Amino acid sequence: MSAGTGARAARAALAAVSEPGDALVHDAVALHGPEEVLSRLRAGDGTVLPGRASARRLEGYGHRLAALDEAAAAPDGAGSAGGGAGAADGDPARALRLVCPGDEEWPSQLDDLALAGASGGFPLRPPLCLWVRGAADLRALAARSVAVIGARAATAYGEHVAADLAAEVAERGWTVLSGAAYGVDAAAHRGAVAGGGSTVAVLACGADAVYPRGHELLLHRVAQSGAVVSELPPGATVTRSRLLQRNRLVAALTRGTVVVEAAVRSGTASTAGHAAALGRTVMAVPGPVTAPTSAGCHALVRAGRAVLVTSGAEVVDAVGRLGDDAAPAPRGEERPEDGLTPVQLRVLDALPVRRGAPVARLAREAGLDLGSVRAALGLLVLEGLAEADEHGHRVSAALRARRRPERA
Amino acid sequence: MSAGTGARAARAALAAVSEPGDALVHDAVALHGPEEVLSRLRAGDGTVLPGRASARRLEGYGHRLAALDEAAAAPDGAGSAGGGAGAADGDPARALRLVCPGDEEWPSQLDDLALAGASGGFPLRPPLCLWVRGAADLRALAARSVAVIGARAATAYGEHVAADLAAEVAERGWTVLSGAAYGVDAAAHRGAVAGGGSTVAVLACGADAVYPRGHELLLHRVAQSGAVVSELPPGATVTRSRLLQRNRLVAALTRGTVVVEAAVRSGTASTAGHAAALGRTVMAVPGPVTAPTSAGCHALVRAGRAVLVTSGAEVVDAVGRLGDDAAPAPRGEERPEDGLTPVQLRVLDALPVRRGAPVARLAREAGLDLGSVRAALGLLVLEGLAEADEHGHRVSAALRARRRPERA
Repeated sequence: MSAGTGARAARAALAAVSEPGDALVHDAVALHGPEEVLSRLRAGDGTVLPGRASARRLEGYGHRLAALDEAAAAPDGAGSAGGGAGAADGDPARALRLVCPGDEEWPSQLDDLALAGASGGFPLRPPLCLWVRGAADLRALAARSVAVIGARAATAYGEHVAADLAAEVAERGWTVLSGAAYGVDAAAHRGAVAGGGSTVAVLACGADAVYPRGHELLLHRVAQSGAVVSELPPGATVTRSRLLQRNRLVAALTRGTVVVEAAVRSGTASTAGHAAALGRTVMAVPGPVTAPTSAGCHALVRAGRAVLVTSGAEVVDAVGRLGDDAAPAPRGEERPEDGLTPVQLRVLDALPVRRGAPVARLAREAGLDLGSVRAALGLLVLEGLAEADEHGHRVSAALRARRRPERA
Repeated sequence: MSAGTGARAARAALAAVSEPGDALVHDAVALHGPEEVLSRLRAGDGTVLPGRASARRLEGYGHRLAALDEAAAAPDGAGSAGGGAGAADGDPARALRLVCPGDEEWPSQLDDLALAGASGGFPLRPPLCLWVRGAADLRALAARSVAVIGARAATAYGEHVAADLAAEVAERGWTVLSGAAYGVDAAAHRGAVAGGGSTVAVLACGADAVYPRGHELLLHRVAQSGAVVSELPPGATVTRSRLLQRNRLVAALTRGTVVVEAAVRSGTASTAGHAAALGRTVMAVPGPVTAPTSAGCHALVRAGRAVLVTSGAEVVDAVGRLGDDAAPAPRGEERPEDGLTPVQLRVLDALPVRRGAPVARLAREAGLDLGSVRAALGLLVLEGLAEADEHGHRVSAALRARRRPERA
């Protein structure tokens, strides 16, 4: 059931006058509906909030509502974007649309935030609504999505791994979601695009804004194949607490969060914490133990709070449904000795490298009877591991060549 | 109770004519004692073995015993080292001593090999005896010891980490045990010596041998502070199966095994498997996911078969007794915002960077009442996070400077 026009406009207005994650406003809307909450806040009636708002806080909502109404009434119509969609020449990569709970495009996994309630003392609430720009449907994009996040001050290794891993995830039909920051985030978005997949950027400012400044082209590319999303109204700027609140959306929208590089204390750790509180899979990519940028990843694995992953296949394996997306176990190089029985290995081990030895000597050497040695030799010759010469049997030329670098 | 001279000589002779880990000979000795087994094998009486030996195998023991006796009877006394200690000018770093079960120096944790019985289809048996050279007591060395092992074809990263980690382990009073191979093993021994600790090398050839050839000085250094150990008699050479059997001793002698670098299939993996079968702690050091040399470590962690470790402190934490050797949790850099309440954080967040704002505006911005903002400002100024100017309060110069690189 899609929300009515009045309810949608009320959600947008409430989102514009409260901070992301405001539990009082969210809980009031859940109890009374957005229109009722909006009109009573406009009237300065604090009883609509679940009892804990100070007079000053109530006054704050009132001030900001008045400013919003004033802007909407102004001849240039500034602030009207708060309620609806921008025109932007009909380009879906630029036009903003408002997505509300109950809309077909609403990613209902965001409601898990209300169920979780809190993560490490941090209250969790779903957004009141989302502003979205981009060609693709957000709900469809987010249904099979993985967050790939990490340090802004990433190393070349971190950016390389983030891009590779995101490309592999995207190639497998999964959406890569991140925060469009410098470093790991940007590499993840770029990797997903390079992998021919779609990607979603969740911003801590208005979805119309270009933040960080250097990412104008990147955000445009993201919107072309995927979506740029924010719970903040157009024109809103980034603040520290908005960045922290944004992290809960990254965690909630996806099936799992991959931390590529992170120091021990970081915003990335907060996203991982939210993901765990929401029952999502937390994954971490290891790196050199000598790099502080990987210390946060290693700490997550050591604490049992993250699964170690080394590839996009392993990520999809961890978040995919059983049997659906299983990753192949990593295999070492095949070795010619693989699959030999212990007896065959003992005979192989007894074989001289240069001058062949007769079966009787091999049997003594290996502590085996003649029949066992003969049977084993037959197989070893077949497998190209042993060869006959005029004195008996020895290690084959092929195996000698193979062993040389290993023994060096 | 120390074994008598006859029993000791019999163990040494049996070790010289059977391969390491020979379950038949070990089990016969456990049933009948070494002297009885030796004399009956000398007489060609196979009934002393637990029923599974072929005639050829029995003949093999007989042949090798005859050769051993012949060598011992020769005027130059070659082969006599099989039974006792070499003289080597009284230098304990060179003189070999025989250590048998029941001796004070016998590391009794080796008996766990008989209890485990097998590891992944690989039969496990304790050694019949050990030849040891070195200044220190093997039992004392091994009581608090950790194996640090890995690829011969280690990277510079692997050797660096192995040496650092071994030095940290050694500094904490733990013995570092390894296999004296090139690569990780050698780096671990060197790191332990550099850390002022002691180290033990377990060889797959005679303990008098220098293998690999390039490690003459290294092995001498190991023996000076610790011990060089083998279950093979002096003069014995390395074979593939002896290397594999050596791994069970590395696993059994130590409280835990740290894998520093290993490909997915490797001898290192076999040692880790034995350690797990013996109930020892298996640890793995992560590395770049782009390096095949770390793939084996990551696979162990992913399979839940190893604990991820990043430092010697974490290694000692994992193998140490509870409360004894606990590692400090890694801490991120302290940040000035650490420990602020949510209200204080909101005020900090509302503070302008350039021109100060009056309390009333900060209260509106933060959605707080004036009293809360004033109280928070007091603390923020005290903590050096906020400062007053003629217009009100703003972010302090110190915090501005601190934030700049982070936001870049």
